[in-house]
Amino acid sequence: MRKQKKVKDSYVIMTELVLPNDTNTLNNLMGGRMMHWMDIVSAISAQKFSNRIVVTASVDNVSFSETIRLGNVVTLEAKVTRAFNSSMEVHIEVYAEDIPSGKKFLSNQAFFTFVAVDQLGNPIDVPEAIPESEEELKHFDGALRRRQLRLVLAGRMKPSDAVELKSIFDIKED
Amino acid sequence: MRKQKKVKDSYVIMTELVLPNDTNTLNNLMGGRMMHWMDIVSAISAQKFSNRIVVTASVDNVSFSETIRLGNVVTLEAKVTRAFNSSMEVHIEVYAEDIPSGKKFLSNQAFFTFVAVDQLGNPIDVPEAIPESEEELKHFDGALRRRQLRLVLAGRMKPSDAVELKSIFDIKED
Amino acid sequence: MRKQKKVKDSYVIMTELVLPNDTNTLNNLMGGRMMHWMDIVSAISAQKFSNRIVVTASVDNVSFSETIRLGNVVTLEAKVTRAFNSSMEVHIEVYAEDIPSGKKFLSNQAFFTFVAVDQLGNPIDVPEAIPESEEELKHFDGALRRRQLRLVLAGRMKPSDAVELKSIFDIKED
Amino acid sequence: MRKQKKVKDSYVIMTELVLPNDTNTLNNLMGGRMMHWMDIVSAISAQKFSNRIVVTASVDNVSFSETIRLGNVVTLEAKVTRAFNSSMEVHIEVYAEDIPSGKKFLSNQAFFTFVAVDQLGNPIDVPEAIPESEEELKHFDGALRRRQLRLVLAGRMKPSDAVELKSIFDIKED
Amino acid sequence: MRKQKKVKDSYVIMTELVLPNDTNTLNNLMGGRMMHWMDIVSAISAQKFSNRIVVTASVDNVSFSETIRLGNVVTLEAKVTRAFNSSMEVHIEVYAEDIPSGKKFLSNQAFFTFVAVDQLGNPIDVPEAIPESEEELKHFDGALRRRQLRLVLAGRMKPSDAVELKSIFDIKED
Amino acid sequence: MRKQKKVKDSYVIMTELVLPNDTNTLNNLMGGRMMHWMDIVSAISAQKFSNRIVVTASVDNVSFSETIRLGNVVTLEAKVTRAFNSSMEVHIEVYAEDIPSGKKFLSNQAFFTFVAVDQLGNPIDVPEAIPESEEELKHFDGALRRRQLRLVLAGRMKPSDAVELKSIFDIKED
Repeated sequence: MRKQKKVKDSYVIMTELVLPNDTNTLNNLMGGRMMHWMDIVSAISAQKFSNRIVVTASVDNVSFSETIRLGNVVTLEAKVTRAFNSSMEVHIEVYAEDIPSGKKFLSNQAFFTFVAVDQLGNPIDVPEAIPESEEELKHFDGALRRRQLRLVLAGRMKPSDAVELKSIFDIKED
Repeated sequence: MRKQKKVKDSYVIMTELVLPNDTNTLNNLMGGRMMHWMDIVSAISAQKFSNRIVVTASVDNVSFSETIRLGNVVTLEAKVTRAFNSSMEVHIEVYAEDIPSGKKFLSNQAFFTFVAVDQLGNPIDVPEAIPESEEELKHFDGALRRRQLRLVLAGRMKPSDAVELKSIFDIKED
Repeated sequence: MRKQKKVKDSYVIMTELVLPNDTNTLNNLMGGRMMHWMDIVSAISAQKFSNRIVVTASVDNVSFSETIRLGNVVTLEAKVTRAFNSSMEVHIEVYAEDIPSGKKFLSNQAFFTFVAVDQLGNPIDVPEAIPESEEELKHFDGALRRRQLRLVLAGRMKPSDAVELKSIFDIKED
Repeated sequence: MRKQKKVKDSYVIMTELVLPNDTNTLNNLMGGRMMHWMDIVSAISAQKFSNRIVVTASVDNVSFSETIRLGNVVTLEAKVTRAFNSSMEVHIEVYAEDIPSGKKFLSNQAFFTFVAVDQLGNPIDVPEAIPESEEELKHFDGALRRRQLRLVLAGRMKPSDAVELKSIFDIKED
Repeated sequence: MRKQKKVKDSYVIMTELVLPNDTNTLNNLMGGRMMHWMDIVSAISAQKFSNRIVVTASVDNVSFSETIRLGNVVTLEAKVTRAFNSSMEVHIEVYAEDIPSGKKFLSNQAFFTFVAVDQLGNPIDVPEAIPESEEELKHFDGALRRRQLRLVLAGRMKPSDAVELKSIFDIKED
Repeated sequence: MRKQKKVKDSYVIMTELVLPNDTNTLNNLMGGRMMHWMDIVSAISAQKFSNRIVVTASVDNVSFSETIRLGNVVTLEAKVTRAFNSSMEVHIEVYAEDIPSGKKFLSNQAFFTFVAVDQLGNPIDVPEAIPESEEELKHFDGALRRRQLRLVLAGRMKPSDAVELKSIFDIKED
């Protein structure tokens, strides 16, 4: 029988200080730097969950609506939402904080998918993810739908087969 | 009347050598480093097109199917596909090349969206993009549909209003 | 009356992946890189506590007994232990984890001291730190003694005046 | 008989220019970056002395009293003070210079300790250090006392056994 | 018979954004950073031409007459000009562009020489370079003269034997 | 009358450890990284001499004949050789050392030229350089000849006017 592991065993928190080289000429954090951080924190989360080396398989749509400034503190929180054979979906929330003003806000969220591999780089099975909290359950439930969207967008699933995906048109969450 | 600019005036090519700090313990390029490069090359493309400072607004789904190794040469080619008021969609193709074997392959492609801003960070209008080649026309045509998907996924458009998007279920391109 | 703030409001967690440029020719994490990380995480902790820009004032004796390897995940946890006018002592614990083996261990601990400054770089008062848990109380109590040791070592206090410090010879904690 | 080597054969000078990413939002050098540089220069000094790979064993109390600014030139001078079996204590002096004003000052000093290791990471004996100048002799003499303080602080020596250390309360040098 | 390869098969374009850490205190790009970029783009060009690992053998005189600013986009174009047994001369042109003003100018040009090596670091033969365009022919023709200058400057050729070099005193090109 | 300054007041020593990201896939130091270091050490030397901000004006021919390896210690020694109005020529010697074998060798030497500028970036006069040792005198004497070669190569002096340069064909030094 497949091994089981709790979602909460995959929680990782990463904190970064926005330095000059992370910013554009307006002194705002560049999107690419944030995605680099998102990739590291979510890879660590998937590694902790699977006790394996992992490689990035896909990144879902990310939108950047808030401006993060030079000197801000950025906190990234990652957790595995669901596991499928050798792949794991990881949810990341990014908070930014301006220390002198005490202003803290949710800046972004994203879903990254990783594949666990052995020393030769071949995919290898991971434990089943067991959600416990209400939020973990909500993310677990939405994972199938997001996976179908990924497969359709990558041209690897026929839209007519994406049964779960169709419900996306009625749902505002995630 | 709105200014016009040819898509080909936005072409940018960037070349990177995969160095040790870009790789994981299997000596493979990490996904986050590639997204960082994608963001820089596409931001430069949008800047050249608009002659403005730009900020990343969103990143569409990216999938990573090929392994890129330490020492490989990575070439990123970016061009604006279409402009909407102050925003521009940029298409990026990523090629990786193993020099000793002469093996070169298309590794990834992605769509990033940028907003042009003035010195205060406020959005400002950009020229209209004029596609010329067959590929430029194809990307120009698909841009509306991808934009609706972004708005629906960001919860800023009702799925029932996404007229163009519905066609995604019949189309395999991009 | 002086403002008060709970110690737990200063908690910060930072996670780092050991990359090639962080290591020596034996593929072990260099001590200087770890101290760089310790400084960043503890500066953020002191900033959150004081809502001010802070500058490093001193670093207490740090010993490195465990080897941390390329690819390990390093977790740094920082919290303010006690505040004195414009300065704050911060305690940092560093854990290292080898993912494939699941081996995780306490690697180091250290005390850094910071001074809160205004925009001109002049010292400015910070809130009083209120410890709650047993561990927070223990660190709060030891802070005076460590402060005297710092002042004696910096030649700014006569040993005969270091009343609290004398007890160090009977105490094994910290 | 144990090999001997002169202290002056371990002298190393390192010069660094303070770049934007080394500074905080007040444009001052961050303490963690300086400790990173201290670790590199003192590791090189210990390597030159021992002709071995070395690992950082401990860092003594460091205090930061002077502000170093963006664009300043930082000079670090390191030398081994004394060797004990496989370990070496290294003294580091840090000078900062503001070129346009010609102002140069001693910013910090510190003692780092290193252990020489073989290719498997096991400790290996190093030569005996022979001091010659008056300053080298003074640092050589103080090394035993500082070593006892390190062992007491690390909980590896009983204070009552630290015969040399007791004299610290009467001495202002180092 | 020696293998042949067209010069145009060695074309490489690299684009860089000038970030804070690349600049001095006047916010101008430092010359050393540009030479670092020149070395990478020309090494990639020589690698593509030879399908070998290459090492830098020499850099010809480079002059810096134009100021490049923080935030500028720098484009480097490299191509092999001529091959000699195991070595290749590469020509690099550097353009800088200030996006908001649309000002673009040729900043520098340089000639770097590389040697192709095998896995043990020993020199190995490369294909003969076949120039086609007028500019490629001009660079091909000048390569012998520049090579003699390099050998004379390195003290490896007697000036009296540098037949081609003597013509440098009548020629303004390159 | 023009201010005078001794050459020895411009001496700067810089020490660097070759880290993974500085090397190619053969684990050898890349030439571009060394030129980056050369530029920093010689800029600091010219700044110390002139007490001004300086910008790189030109780099003379550099040849790379020795292989420097990952983990080697690189020492760069720079000094001003001669000053002309607002420009200074700097000589750099680069030594590499393999610590475990104790093998140390002169790897490269180079001449860089800098211009002193004011806060607006305009050239400003520097002191006259006074050589003292035999080697300083030799470099001082050769400086005129190297300057003429630079001007001829940059197309800014007619070869027939380069009186000093003609002697290069009889001289093996530098």
